[in-house]
Amino acid sequence: MTASREIHLVRRPEGMPVPEDFALVETQVAELGEGEVLVRNLLMSVDPYMRPRLSGAQPLNAAMEGGALGRIEKSRNPAFKEGSLVTSRQGFRELFVSDGKGLTPLSPDPALPLSVYMHVLGMTGFTAYGGLLHIGQLKDGEQVFVSTAAGAVGSIAAQIAKIKGCYVVGSTGSDDKVRWLTEEAGLDVALNYKNEPIRKALKAAAPKGIDVYFDNVGGDHLDAALSVMNTLGRIAVCGMISGYNEAGSRTPVYNLSNIIYGRINVRGFVGADFPHLYEPFRAEMAEWLKAGRIKYQETIYQGIDQAPAAMIGLLKGANTGKMLVALAD
Amino acid sequence: MTASREIHLVRRPEGMPVPEDFALVETQVAELGEGEVLVRNLLMSVDPYMRPRLSGAQPLNAAMEGGALGRIEKSRNPAFKEGSLVTSRQGFRELFVSDGKGLTPLSPDPALPLSVYMHVLGMTGFTAYGGLLHIGQLKDGEQVFVSTAAGAVGSIAAQIAKIKGCYVVGSTGSDDKVRWLTEEAGLDVALNYKNEPIRKALKAAAPKGIDVYFDNVGGDHLDAALSVMNTLGRIAVCGMISGYNEAGSRTPVYNLSNIIYGRINVRGFVGADFPHLYEPFRAEMAEWLKAGRIKYQETIYQGIDQAPAAMIGLLKGANTGKMLVALAD
Repeated sequence: MTASREIHLVRRPEGMPVPEDFALVETQVAELGEGEVLVRNLLMSVDPYMRPRLSGAQPLNAAMEGGALGRIEKSRNPAFKEGSLVTSRQGFRELFVSDGKGLTPLSPDPALPLSVYMHVLGMTGFTAYGGLLHIGQLKDGEQVFVSTAAGAVGSIAAQIAKIKGCYVVGSTGSDDKVRWLTEEAGLDVALNYKNEPIRKALKAAAPKGIDVYFDNVGGDHLDAALSVMNTLGRIAVCGMISGYNEAGSRTPVYNLSNIIYGRINVRGFVGADFPHLYEPFRAEMAEWLKAGRIKYQETIYQGIDQAPAAMIGLLKGANTGKMLVALAD
Repeated sequence: MTASREIHLVRRPEGMPVPEDFALVETQVAELGEGEVLVRNLLMSVDPYMRPRLSGAQPLNAAMEGGALGRIEKSRNPAFKEGSLVTSRQGFRELFVSDGKGLTPLSPDPALPLSVYMHVLGMTGFTAYGGLLHIGQLKDGEQVFVSTAAGAVGSIAAQIAKIKGCYVVGSTGSDDKVRWLTEEAGLDVALNYKNEPIRKALKAAAPKGIDVYFDNVGGDHLDAALSVMNTLGRIAVCGMISGYNEAGSRTPVYNLSNIIYGRINVRGFVGADFPHLYEPFRAEMAEWLKAGRIKYQETIYQGIDQAPAAMIGLLKGANTGKMLVALAD
């Protein structure tokens, strides 16, 4: 038997999660049966979409779910060699046993750091890519607005739009992030929504209106975008983080009649909605990364015991770019 | 010179329009030049989409615009024979001179009453048809909700959904309309939103959720629909009449985060968004009408001087079905 540690949800959060909603639980990993493998997680992902799950789909007193990248430590399954890498949905734990289902072999490009497979080249980047190009139907040279533009998904969406020759406005919540967005990521305008009302700021920053809004926020950001959307504009709704932590109440949106006046298309999506784009995404994004055309930032917490703090920190905006937890080398 | 009368907008309405916002103006129609025709309007249309125009696009102290069906009274244009019928955007007036641009010749089916070309077989019906089948991507047998289901557009959308084998819930504002919807139009459930909160009523009426919501109302109806939409549901936004008359304020919507949880597509549209469907619509709808599969109701005011009352009555729900004004026989 081998000891492992994992994070359980022990109480449903009221509003913003607190450390007491989670518990670090020590477990014993069973011996491998025929066809099974033991995976040691190296990195795990912490994402905004996890917040609504805490109020619903995530069972109490069970290990939490999430993207993870691990190494096969022992194998009794010929399809997985010891020492090889896999991605899975078995985050929030150090070790786990699998019969191979739900494991995806990973052959990383040695020219790229391993962690990018957890964000730019993983589901985060894929969500940005498909959300912008497929759901948002982005055309070269359009006017684009991205909220939480310095976040893991937003920063990739904004930079893809720049690669496509668009005029790109991003919103974020600190002056440091504003600087990174304009000086590193190359956005045309970055707004700190804490410094001025987003609606007024966006109106000034987007004199030609907005054709595609990549929404991670909802609430006041969605309202602001609706007030400047051009006719036949598209709003790709990737998340609505503004409403995730409000117990019992949701942020109202007032400008919805612009949906009819502007014949706007507002569409919620997840990466599973455009699986046919996965291969072109991987190829194109790896090229952009190697050519230095996509910049990224990471915030990496150390150790499984820090996973709850990473989750809470993400929801409070403590991260810069993608939030990860490193579980082993 | 021939005398005509027309309706001008003389003041922008604050909230609900009042008679004083309009004026009946007597004019003289000019003699026909070469290539021109004189059209006498027989019927004109009054529609909810006109309300927002009164606060913006409609110029003051000029004849209002709207769909009309007229007869060529005099012609100096070989393309238009005297006595033939045309449709135009020149409503709200008795007579007008045209060089033929913007006139569409109409050859009505003698088996159908002329007025249906102003609604079921006109833009009203086309909006319902394309909104449901193209924008809403309706599939046979789905769960459907239509607001203002006894209205001109809503009643057609609801009945097309029934023809497609769907389970159809409609909302309306009177018990008489509830009866018409279930007993004549064949809806599965009709709700009077004045009798109980729409959210609770819809939840009870749609135990399998809603796949397609045909929205004419916005506000609380949109909120209610969002709370019961199935995954990958579609909301075809034809209008948001709830917000049209609220000076300075708009109805908030709270359940928008369901757009991301349910990967919902919300899309505003007008008939011009699917011109390729016009021919199939005309053929299919004429058949349904003749077969008695589409029922309709009309409210017809008499005389150009009644056009403002028809406009106000429409916005207050005084109409049953399509609101028309008859201007001549």
